[in-house]
Amino acid sequence: MEVELKEMLDDLEALNQALPDPSYKDSIAKLQRHVGHLTNLVKSAPTQRSKVKDMSAEVVDSNPYSRLMALQRMGIVENYERIREFSVAIVGIGGVGSVAAEMLTRCGIGRLLLYDYDTVGMTKTDAAVQTLSDINPDVVLESYTLNITTVQGFETFMAGLRNQNFHSSKHGSGVDLVLSCVDNYEARMVVNQACNELNQTWMESGVSEDAVSGHIQLLIPGESACFACAPPLVVASGVDERTLKREGVCAASLPTTMGVVAGLLVQNTLKFLLKFGQVSPYLGYNALKDYFPTMEMKPNPQCSNAACLERQREYILIKPARDAAAKAKMEAEASCATECPVHDDNEWNISVVDDDEMETADVLRSSDALPEGLVRELPSADEFKKPPVPEEANASIDDLEDLRRQLDALNAD
Amino acid sequence: MEVELKEMLDDLEALNQALPDPSYKDSIAKLQRHVGHLTNLVKSAPTQRSKVKDMSAEVVDSNPYSRLMALQRMGIVENYERIREFSVAIVGIGGVGSVAAEMLTRCGIGRLLLYDYDTVGMTKTDAAVQTLSDINPDVVLESYTLNITTVQGFETFMAGLRNQNFHSSKHGSGVDLVLSCVDNYEARMVVNQACNELNQTWMESGVSEDAVSGHIQLLIPGESACFACAPPLVVASGVDERTLKREGVCAASLPTTMGVVAGLLVQNTLKFLLKFGQVSPYLGYNALKDYFPTMEMKPNPQCSNAACLERQREYILIKPARDAAAKAKMEAEASCATECPVHDDNEWNISVVDDDEMETADVLRSSDALPEGLVRELPSADEFKKPPVPEEANASIDDLEDLRRQLDALNAD
Repeated sequence: MEVELKEMLDDLEALNQALPDPSYKDSIAKLQRHVGHLTNLVKSAPTQRSKVKDMSAEVVDSNPYSRLMALQRMGIVENYERIREFSVAIVGIGGVGSVAAEMLTRCGIGRLLLYDYDTVGMTKTDAAVQTLSDINPDVVLESYTLNITTVQGFETFMAGLRNQNFHSSKHGSGVDLVLSCVDNYEARMVVNQACNELNQTWMESGVSEDAVSGHIQLLIPGESACFACAPPLVVASGVDERTLKREGVCAASLPTTMGVVAGLLVQNTLKFLLKFGQVSPYLGYNALKDYFPTMEMKPNPQCSNAACLERQREYILIKPARDAAAKAKMEAEASCATECPVHDDNEWNISVVDDDEMETADVLRSSDALPEGLVRELPSADEFKKPPVPEEANASIDDLEDLRRQLDALNAD
Repeated sequence: MEVELKEMLDDLEALNQALPDPSYKDSIAKLQRHVGHLTNLVKSAPTQRSKVKDMSAEVVDSNPYSRLMALQRMGIVENYERIREFSVAIVGIGGVGSVAAEMLTRCGIGRLLLYDYDTVGMTKTDAAVQTLSDINPDVVLESYTLNITTVQGFETFMAGLRNQNFHSSKHGSGVDLVLSCVDNYEARMVVNQACNELNQTWMESGVSEDAVSGHIQLLIPGESACFACAPPLVVASGVDERTLKREGVCAASLPTTMGVVAGLLVQNTLKFLLKFGQVSPYLGYNALKDYFPTMEMKPNPQCSNAACLERQREYILIKPARDAAAKAKMEAEASCATECPVHDDNEWNISVVDDDEMETADVLRSSDALPEGLVRELPSADEFKKPPVPEEANASIDDLEDLRRQLDALNAD
């Protein structure tokens, strides 16, 4: 706009010089004043900053990343700038999706792929790209206006995720994470299908129809339960786990719940991508009680999704090697910790108990119980004799197996 | 801008008609095309909606409140439209404060008073008012650019809170809630002082220097611990309780943590104002572990703040009457529940256990223990003989009293 107004000023001045009759000078002067005023208006509007080549930790007003890069100095993140290498696809640019996209944009994510079929004047994804590029021009933004639940839309969605132009991964996918921020069961099942086929890790999010509860969930094909794996046997108390929206019902919506769920989702995304803290496999949010249930779900060997079963078979094959590597790494770290004590003098004989050890112990102790926040929908089977515990006790909480055993016991009566 | 451009078009057309020489027609036509293009640009920019007189639940695109009013139909809020009667003051329009202000604006709060002394080109509070009035023109927005920690600033702050033009309350304050979103101890103590003097309920919020933990806290003068009441004896594990910022250190900042803390703060605000769900007295957020500690703190009878002690004396006087009224109300509801069963036929003899009863029982059982997430900084005093439990057992968890007893026991050795 500024360029165009400058051009108009020049044209008016040329016209002014060329006109022989001074009686037109007033009209020209008036037009020039208008253009001058409009130029001032345009100049006073917030302008987009220019792109930044490298993320710096320097504390100056012109550096938009100083407060994010401070995470490194604080010892939270080892290498924050890696965030520029990552691609994240967001499906559904509504209440949760648009806030999540803005947060990732402010964090300086490398590339965002935005999927929605809806329009708000212009298409939702185009509108989002416009807003987000003003917030942070460093982010590569891609707008996909399509319905992933149609055959054509699904193909385009899959092709978009496969495209490795920005960055290539070993999994045959061009994105590092897919965030599902849709508001219906059908679309979730489609994201689930695509991610199972592509062996693509993704995160689910949802807000209940009454707007006062929500959840986020991490889904790693083959390793954790997929969206089709979990039969509705286990429900997190007080939180709508599957977050079904009824047709024709105008759901309630609260900016607060949307903001909290988007915040928890993107926080989990940052922890997953930048490898800090503990990535939550499932986190619920009950706004009425400020209660945040967590749980972990193993994949269902009888899952109805063929691609999920394939990923499960692959995971079983690679798991022993992965576990051995993890164990070796842990032992190496432990022996290093023993050999090189942090404090040579320990006058008071203070010793530190490892957090991880305590947590593992807790999990082992409570392997029969359901995690906090879960209720059994089946009555407990007191008369059921447990099979002898195998030598290699499984340290994880196998909810579905446990429930299936109870179900079998009940059926056997 | 549109009016000005229209005027320019008219002027150009008049000039075109008046000019005798057709050689200038091209210049004029070019200028007209420019003005036409600029008009289209201006028209395509998002326009502010007009004010809405009443909140309606009608589901049409033109109704900005249908998804909020749906909270009534869903049975979450009894009267959502009451939100237009409330005034909220926000002190500190930074990472948490600006997001909280936007959420309250989207929720259609009656009036927002914004306090900050900082500038971002224009003053932070003026910039916020401009943005927020575009989002929701129904909200009455007041911008106060001042430093509340100066003598003059404090006086203006107090006068602003006392002003009852919008709405009057029995407490001598013109606002229903103050939200503290400042980033330093000194400013928190000033908000604490003002609210204690005015008997003004407020909520505290904070994010730690490393950006991965935060908290919100409800402070009711005389009834709960004020900000000066709590000595640093009890700390929530993993969460910086007092959230001190060191001078000269560039703190880290994450849009995710800011969004979650602002979301929890405004959610608690909505529950407090619109009377739904359970208002949290304290809620922590540990982002690394997705852990959310809660606790409750009683006022300190030895608090250093004189206004707090005055409020405590007042509260002790009104408490018996208030407790009796609450008990009478509960009994009335209980007797109604007994007399008018919801289901007349109960073939399976199903009875419902009251959530509240169970929670009260839990609290009584664990009255010796600290709530989950709290650790004692003093060693526990095994040898200390407890005084006999009085007839009327105190159902609340009296952390400070408990710790003080332990301290006395240790000192007595």
